Parts: sequence; C-alpha cells; structure tokens
Amino acid sequence: MEAHIEEHLKSSDTLRDVVIGMSDGLTVPFALAAGLSGAVDSTGIIIIAGIAEIAAGSIAMGLGGYLAGKTEQDHYNSEVKREYYEVENLRHKEVEETKEFFANIGLSEELQDRATEEIAKDKKQWVDFMMKYELGLDKPDPRRATKSALNIGISYIVGGLVPLSPYFFMHSPTDGLKISAIVTLICLFIFGFFKSRITGINPWAGAIRVTLIGAVAAGAAFGVAKLFEG
Amino acid sequence: MEAHIEEHLKSSDTLRDVVIGMSDGLTVPFALAAGLSGAVDSTGIIIIAGIAEIAAGSIAMGLGGYLAGKTEQDHYNSEVKREYYEVENLRHKEVEETKEFFANIGLSEELQDRATEEIAKDKKQWVDFMMKYELGLDKPDPRRATKSALNIGISYIVGGLVPLSPYFFMHSPTDGLKISAIVTLICLFIFGFFKSRITGINPWAGAIRVTLIGAVAAGAAFGVAKLFEG
Repeated sequence: MEAHIEEHLKSSDTLRDVVIGMSDGLTVPFALAAGLSGAVDSTGIIIIAGIAEIAAGSIAMGLGGYLAGKTEQDHYNSEVKREYYEVENLRHKEVEETKEFFANIGLSEELQDRATEEIAKDKKQWVDFMMKYELGLDKPDPRRATKSALNIGISYIVGGLVPLSPYFFMHSPTDGLKISAIVTLICLFIFGFFKSRITGINPWAGAIRVTLIGAVAAGAAFGVAKLFEG
Repeated sequence: MEAHIEEHLKSSDTLRDVVIGMSDGLTVPFALAAGLSGAVDSTGIIIIAGIAEIAAGSIAMGLGGYLAGKTEQDHYNSEVKREYYEVENLRHKEVEETKEFFANIGLSEELQDRATEEIAKDKKQWVDFMMKYELGLDKPDPRRATKSALNIGISYIVGGLVPLSPYFFMHSPTDGLKISAIVTLICLFIFGFFKSRITGINPWAGAIRVTLIGAVAAGAAFGVAKLFEG
C-alpha cells in the first residue's frame, strides 16, 4: 500500500497540473460570469467577458507554469555548478555540512565521519547527495516546463467552458446564472472529490471545501459587481 | 554566500505567496480589461467586470492557497501516523527502507547496517528521518494556511487594481487601455525583475519573460473578444 501511494505521488505531476488549471478554470470564470449576471442585461457581454477571461487566465496560468518550470531548471543548474565548485575548492566546508547532515539524523560521531568519508569518495555521488538532501532539490525533467504549460492551459479552458456554456443557450443573464451555478457547483463537487482522493484527504470533506470556495467566490463577485453597478 | 542564499530560500514563503498572487493579479485583470476594451463602448462595463474578476480571482486563489496549506497539513499528519504504525508493527520493512536510503547515497554495506541501527534506536528520530528523507515531507507550519490565503488574496487585489485603475479616470475604453497597458507592463517588468532576483535567475531575462506573458495574455484576450463580438 505504501509503495502504491508513493508511486501515486510521483506520477502525479500531470495530475497536479490538471488540478491547478481546472480548479481555477472552474472557479474564476464561473464567479466572473455570476458577478456580471447581477450587473448587466445581456448575455452577450457575459460571453465576451467570459471568453476574454478564459483566454487571459489560460495563457497567464499556462505560461506561468512554463516559467515556473524553466526557473526551477535554471535554479537547479546554477546550484549544481556551485556544489561542484564547493566540493572542489571548499572541501572542508562541504565535509562539515555533510557531517552535520548525519549528525542531524542522529548518527554517532564515529559514523558521521565514516559516512562522510565514503560519500566524499565519488565527486558526482557527493554532489547528488548535497543537491537532494542539503538543498532539497530534485533534478527537474527538462520537458516538464512545456508539458506543464499545456496541461495547465488546456485544463483551464476546459474548466472555464463549463460555467460559461449555459450563457450561450439562455436569453437572460439570470437564467444563465441559474444553470451555470447548478452545473458548475456539481462539477466542482466531483472535481473536489477526486482531487482529495488523490492527495489522500477525506474526499467528502474535500469536495465540500472546493465547492464552497467556488460558491463564495461567485457570491462575492456578484455582490461586488452589484455594488459598483448601483 | 551559501548560508545567505539558503536563508533566503527558507524565509521566502511569504514572498512566494506575494509573487503568486501579484503575478496573476497583474496579468489576468489586465488581460480581461484589454479584451473588453476591444469589444465594448463604455468603461463602466470594464470596471464592473474587472472588479468582479478581482473579487473572484483573489478569493479563488486565496482560498485555494488556504486549501493547499490545509491539505498539506492533513497529508503530513496522516503520513506521520502511518510511519509510527510501520515503525512499531513492520519493523523489518522500515529497516529495509532505511538501509536502502543509505545504500542509495553511497554508503558501504557495513555502514548501512550500523547507521540504520543507530537511527532506529529512537522511535521519534526514526520517524522524523523517514518523513523527511524517505517521503520528502517537511513539517508544515500550522498557521501557514491562513497566512498564505491572506498574502495571496491581498497581493492579487493590489496587483489587479493596477491595470484597472486607469479605466476609472478615462472616458473611452481605448484611452483606458493605452494607459493601462503602459502602467501594467512597466509594473510587470519591475515585478519580474525582483521576482527573478529572488529565485536567483537573470533578472533582466526574467523581467522580459514576465512582461511578455502579460502582453501575450492581453493580446490574446483582445483578439478573442473582438472575434466573439463580431
């Protein structure tokens, strides 16, 4: 069971991207459309604003994910370089840091020294160790940034079309809002349920939390828009 | 210098929240307003839509941050429980896993055995070790979720008011868009510069990347909204 769950957590990069994109994609366009429904008379404006928001949000989040991936890679590469430099030129300092690691996890002085000695025998092995356990950095997948951007962007679009589509078929914003709220809150509940199951928390509690966020955001947007309209 | 930078990375939770909130706050309302500027005649609609989007986005992202923090905590707690259970009831399996860790970082068979023995002497120390180095989980700060929600939400609002405020003072959407684009792109550039400096990548390249994302998102929203208006 342990192995199963750890597997899960590792293979979940794509899933995490989809969750990030869909979570905001379902919520923000839903809330925006709800807000406008309280303030304008035509569904045309809501559709244009909704489409513009989906375009803006998917690009901002998708490219944001790309940038985050690229930054992670740049950061990793610059740290690797520095560790190699330090292992070669500041050996005593790195030995100290390595010993400190073993001291922190609870090894005796004798084992701290001997373990450090063994690790320091191989330069690459030593740097790998420092990267992962001193700095807590995993080697990022180079194709990750691009994949991440696409996953997040597309999930945002898919999510955003759910709350917006009822407005295409209804004549008044209020009717659109009713259907949109029903459909979106159901989708948020289902989405929250599976998202929580993946992260290992109680799926019913998680589903309710996610649905509540959507409802609160939509309610606030509705209230604020009404306020500024009046 | 190393110590300095590591300090930086640890103290940057708040900073990371601000970056998350402000990055989307500057970009998405900017792009939405730009999109609507190409499709509607009055700044009133743009202001209402912008305010609704800022309310929706700040709540969705803020509560999203809260949820992420809570989930992290729940996940950590359930894993701690499981590790204690395993240390007590599946001792041989945990010994295997601990030995494996030491094998992976490059220790000899003898040291693998002895290090495992020393760590396993103290149950709490052993579980702490497994949490951090087998599962890669750090103990989350219990007040983090709430702080994170506020930081992200407020940063989103502050960021979002930048592109929106010109529309309060201009009569036509096109004039509003011009000022909004100038002000927002400058802010994105400055914001991207400092964000990149914090994460340790080239600040000029980072500033250009962040500004480009904003410009592309706004351009796409403008184009898509024009398309749906026609």
